[in-house]
Amino acid sequence: MERDVILNECFARDGLQNESDLVDTASKVALIDSFTDLGFQRIEATSYANPERVPQFADASAVLAGMRRGQGVLYKASCGNVRAVERANADFDRGAGPNEISLLASASEGHSKKNLNATKAEQWERISEMIAVAAGRYNLVGSLSVAFACPFDGPVSPDIVAQDCARFADLGVSTISLGDTIGAATPDRICDMFESLATAHPKLTFVAHFHDTRGLGLANCLAAYQAGCRYFDTAFGGAGGHPARIKYGNGYTGNVATEDLVNMFEAMGIRTGIDLGGLIDTARRCEAAIGRELLGKVTRTGLSPFLGALQ
Amino acid sequence: MERDVILNECFARDGLQNESDLVDTASKVALIDSFTDLGFQRIEATSYANPERVPQFADASAVLAGMRRGQGVLYKASCGNVRAVERANADFDRGAGPNEISLLASASEGHSKKNLNATKAEQWERISEMIAVAAGRYNLVGSLSVAFACPFDGPVSPDIVAQDCARFADLGVSTISLGDTIGAATPDRICDMFESLATAHPKLTFVAHFHDTRGLGLANCLAAYQAGCRYFDTAFGGAGGHPARIKYGNGYTGNVATEDLVNMFEAMGIRTGIDLGGLIDTARRCEAAIGRELLGKVTRTGLSPFLGALQ
Repeated sequence: MERDVILNECFARDGLQNESDLVDTASKVALIDSFTDLGFQRIEATSYANPERVPQFADASAVLAGMRRGQGVLYKASCGNVRAVERANADFDRGAGPNEISLLASASEGHSKKNLNATKAEQWERISEMIAVAAGRYNLVGSLSVAFACPFDGPVSPDIVAQDCARFADLGVSTISLGDTIGAATPDRICDMFESLATAHPKLTFVAHFHDTRGLGLANCLAAYQAGCRYFDTAFGGAGGHPARIKYGNGYTGNVATEDLVNMFEAMGIRTGIDLGGLIDTARRCEAAIGRELLGKVTRTGLSPFLGALQ
Repeated sequence: MERDVILNECFARDGLQNESDLVDTASKVALIDSFTDLGFQRIEATSYANPERVPQFADASAVLAGMRRGQGVLYKASCGNVRAVERANADFDRGAGPNEISLLASASEGHSKKNLNATKAEQWERISEMIAVAAGRYNLVGSLSVAFACPFDGPVSPDIVAQDCARFADLGVSTISLGDTIGAATPDRICDMFESLATAHPKLTFVAHFHDTRGLGLANCLAAYQAGCRYFDTAFGGAGGHPARIKYGNGYTGNVATEDLVNMFEAMGIRTGIDLGGLIDTARRCEAAIGRELLGKVTRTGLSPFLGALQ
């Protein structure tokens, strides 16, 4: 199917990470299968986080073993350290692993220390080691948190982000996700950053990973698109997102809601490759898995009338 | 105070219109006074709707008599018919009326019949009569509903909207609010429409009146701004909006939330003239007046960290 943008569906990992109620393995597998069926080419499937610290992902290997795999689809697992990569390798080597892993870094020292328990220098050492252990098995995604502002250190200089991207590139990581972790970015800043990074690193792929903390999720995704970005991280219902668990309405904000971004892009004639006929039903099934109404707007209001007119 | 955009705070009318619980007059007056103090230059104060049909606005004259008036501030009252304009005139002529009134039209025949109980031709006759009765007392705002799509007739041709704007201009109405009543518009359509209307009618002032039904409120306002629009209708908490009362989360969607639009603009360096120090507190007082949490995001999460850095 022709598509203009590539969405990475993050519900099964990022979306569930902060949920204290465990979602059973069969439900996770069924949801990931439905994401595959809807046409996603990138799906964040699980995390090799320490099961004692994040019990939600104790079933990482079982999820990866149980789910169907679409041709050419990347199924990502988050890896926080070398131990996680070793677990991914064991699954991979028996034919049931992820084919993409993410490597986490923070643009600010404050967030690196609080979130990764490491200075930035220490974390770059870890990432080097993780890449060595991965030994070419996976597509590697550099995931850079607080790329616009940090909850501890405040606004982050775009020069720092550019340096961190160069560091990832030096390590052979060609896909880099730019995280607006606390939803601080604005369309102008995003446009500037994506344009300057694309100029400095024409061979790298940059991914927009934005949070809707202040309602700017869609506006920021559109700004990134206008600046040439074609890769977007989203989660059905806007689930997941900021680790500080900011409560908003009856959910947590939050990733950009997949259904709302698909609706915006498709209504503008920007092809996502996602099956619109199954979009809302899948959003509802994600809500059912978590057990509450989430934040996707078109799940309540329906898709754009322009989509009906265009179809 | 220097400002780049003019926001019209619609909470006291559009925001309350669909609320079945009546807000007492003193609370309305206190809120409108706080809007004046925050620096709004346009405030939608009340409606001269038939009190038997819309009891919320039975106190229209008392609200207008009770509130303070800022220098140069436009206080709008909605007028649905000639009787409403006559009531506005009586208040005006005793020195306690609005200084701006809105004249409602629909871009589609279907919405005109359902919402105004008149064909478009009949409504234009009414508007002519209302303007004659107003006799130059007020700044007149043509308020065009379903300017992008209609819940009954589907997508609306921009040519129809252009004709309706020309009709308003012929009647001497120089300010026209373009309503995305069902939240169907997308940034590309908004950009096209505002640019082409500004070219066709360089002396008219166009106002963006967008609903956040599908999460596109901020993105659409930004698109309008980029197309040259400087006037925006918003309501604290995203209150009010679509008359079909689409339920969304724990509120109704909804006008663009004032606090979120102010946050976006100011974080981008676009000056709104609104006092940021009192913004969130006012949003909370609007929530208290309605008696529930509304949909403004920065009311929960705080203003952009870039605003702290810039101040």
